[in-house]
Amino acid sequence: MSGWQLKNKTCIVGIGETQFMRWGRSTRSSFDLACEAISKAVADAGLNIHDIDGLVTYALDQNHVAKMATGLGLPELRYATFWPGGGGGTAAVIMDAAMAVHCGAANYVVCYRSLCQGQERRFGQAKPMDVATGEAAFTTPYGLVSPAQRLGLQVKRYMHEYHITERHLAAVALACNKHAQRNPRALMNGKPLTLETYLSSRMIVDPLRLYDCCLESDGACAIVVTTLERARSLKKKPVSILAACQGAGARQGEAPGDVNREGYLTANFYKMASDLYKRAEVTPKDVDVAQIYESCTGMVLMALEDFGFCGRGEAGRFVETGALEWPAGRLPINTSGGNLAEGYIHGLELVNEGVRQMRGDSTSQVQDAKICLVAGGSGAHLVSCMLLGRE
Amino acid sequence: MSGWQLKNKTCIVGIGETQFMRWGRSTRSSFDLACEAISKAVADAGLNIHDIDGLVTYALDQNHVAKMATGLGLPELRYATFWPGGGGGTAAVIMDAAMAVHCGAANYVVCYRSLCQGQERRFGQAKPMDVATGEAAFTTPYGLVSPAQRLGLQVKRYMHEYHITERHLAAVALACNKHAQRNPRALMNGKPLTLETYLSSRMIVDPLRLYDCCLESDGACAIVVTTLERARSLKKKPVSILAACQGAGARQGEAPGDVNREGYLTANFYKMASDLYKRAEVTPKDVDVAQIYESCTGMVLMALEDFGFCGRGEAGRFVETGALEWPAGRLPINTSGGNLAEGYIHGLELVNEGVRQMRGDSTSQVQDAKICLVAGGSGAHLVSCMLLGRE
Repeated sequence: MSGWQLKNKTCIVGIGETQFMRWGRSTRSSFDLACEAISKAVADAGLNIHDIDGLVTYALDQNHVAKMATGLGLPELRYATFWPGGGGGTAAVIMDAAMAVHCGAANYVVCYRSLCQGQERRFGQAKPMDVATGEAAFTTPYGLVSPAQRLGLQVKRYMHEYHITERHLAAVALACNKHAQRNPRALMNGKPLTLETYLSSRMIVDPLRLYDCCLESDGACAIVVTTLERARSLKKKPVSILAACQGAGARQGEAPGDVNREGYLTANFYKMASDLYKRAEVTPKDVDVAQIYESCTGMVLMALEDFGFCGRGEAGRFVETGALEWPAGRLPINTSGGNLAEGYIHGLELVNEGVRQMRGDSTSQVQDAKICLVAGGSGAHLVSCMLLGRE
Repeated sequence: MSGWQLKNKTCIVGIGETQFMRWGRSTRSSFDLACEAISKAVADAGLNIHDIDGLVTYALDQNHVAKMATGLGLPELRYATFWPGGGGGTAAVIMDAAMAVHCGAANYVVCYRSLCQGQERRFGQAKPMDVATGEAAFTTPYGLVSPAQRLGLQVKRYMHEYHITERHLAAVALACNKHAQRNPRALMNGKPLTLETYLSSRMIVDPLRLYDCCLESDGACAIVVTTLERARSLKKKPVSILAACQGAGARQGEAPGDVNREGYLTANFYKMASDLYKRAEVTPKDVDVAQIYESCTGMVLMALEDFGFCGRGEAGRFVETGALEWPAGRLPINTSGGNLAEGYIHGLELVNEGVRQMRGDSTSQVQDAKICLVAGGSGAHLVSCMLLGRE
């Protein structure tokens, strides 16, 4: 696909986040946490809250854009939208904001996600329902309710087809945990994971063990997006949004219904990955570091293949070499610990870490990193990805 | 505000809609109606459904973008978003689509809204709730549950402040009904309204009578948006999107909480109206015809003031002259009948009529009309507006 107009036009100028907590630990409301994260992001950018005239969040967020605009005292809201999916919003909300500032709809757009699984519902637990309607009518009766249950099937077949072992899944969990040990903000900081502990941990949904599944957290993240032109006068060096993609690949519905389709053994990025590289005019070789959404470890392996860091079915061999680990790996991933070990704010915490890598101030900084991939929602029906660049 | 990049860059190339029905009359699902409206819009544009790679709808829509993409068999979905509000989405969904095609995120984006109030819930009826939370906790205990209840208060004070009478409200209802008599698709076609019938109709919420309130309908609408460049090769003459604005004015929360604020006696367009004219580089004088969302008649009067067709508090005198009526009025509005008399598809039916006016094939065609205002959500906390132009 051609025609991408946004290369090096827009950027991230501020990031903010609250303390990350285990689900149920926040004594403050999701709204309060959203305000904190947004205020910090705006301060990080050197802006005043009155400069903000756009808000983007996930449709699932409990804090509506109009409520946030009122709560924050924004003089005027010129752009607001909702991401229609889950963790696939990671890069999509940034892309929406980037398009809005590029088109002149708004000047400074804040993307936010506040998630208190203790106050809402735990994503890892079945939501009680009287009647399963729509797509759920085809999956719920078979026990496919939580993401791990849906994705477990897919990972199982992937392992079978490509001779992927539990040690390959472990490589993802161990890399993320290792990076979390260097990040004092990470929930798993101070709790190092060994291969032995991983292998002896309980099975959640075969083949996914406890440490294959993402954390459930309380917390909030926020990001300020503007044009590169406006960013020149701000205090922080902007992080350029080289390119972004969002939407659905070949797989638009939930995985189980598509079991025999093209793309079942992918993280659903494989079509948009080629668009992404074309839009940024780079190749996988140019990517120095990646933040890849982990609902579970297995989907990260498929994402590595989707994005061309190795061939189809070769992610096992790729990760065996320590490719994912800082500092020496070919592609250190989730350098803050990610969903598995830092905190699960529906992927926006991965954006913040991508920005830190491009600013050069990650706790596991990849030396001379110039391009960072951020990919959200691996395996979901709606996903997104972007390439951030050092300005 | 400066910086609008989209003037004469994007356009509407196809519109589609189902039959409009009274709430509860559709024997087909909301999904089925959405498919019909989208298929018709795509055919109207002379495109194949496989050309569509973007979908935008309201977060309230029962038909999720991923479900629609699967249902329609789209090969790839490159852009999807949700409007976070109600009828304010009218122009906002078109603006989102326009930004996406301009930026190169997608080639052909369909905006749709399918609304079966009989299958979901009637907007005019209170939704049973055990506990009123959030903003509703401040309004529900006082009986402010439906839009008419909230807006009635505002219209009452507006009438008091500016000497607006029931005959001024009637002028809006009568103009819309008159236009519906010329439109065989309109629900009120064949049911002409007289001033006597209007004045003797029952009070819903003082000062709003039955005929002041919008219809409750079953039906669906869809619109195809692309770049003007791509439109050159399509069969229909494109309708240009001159400019669009969305968001919130001074009033971001629900009306009652803001009763003493600036902007209470407006339809919440008054700030964005000046942005809109600047973006399109036109003035109110250049607007030949308007489609203005009517949750109720009173808000249309305030919208006329917001958009500068008359001064503040002067809408009564403006409409007394027959200004809203086709063919001789200064500004014929809702030439299809609008929310009050054609059908209530959450404002998207107004977009379709705006397109017909610019194509020159409305059943109440304004002669030589070159610019049409479409404004959605009058009085809501999130609203939108756009100017369509004849190419």
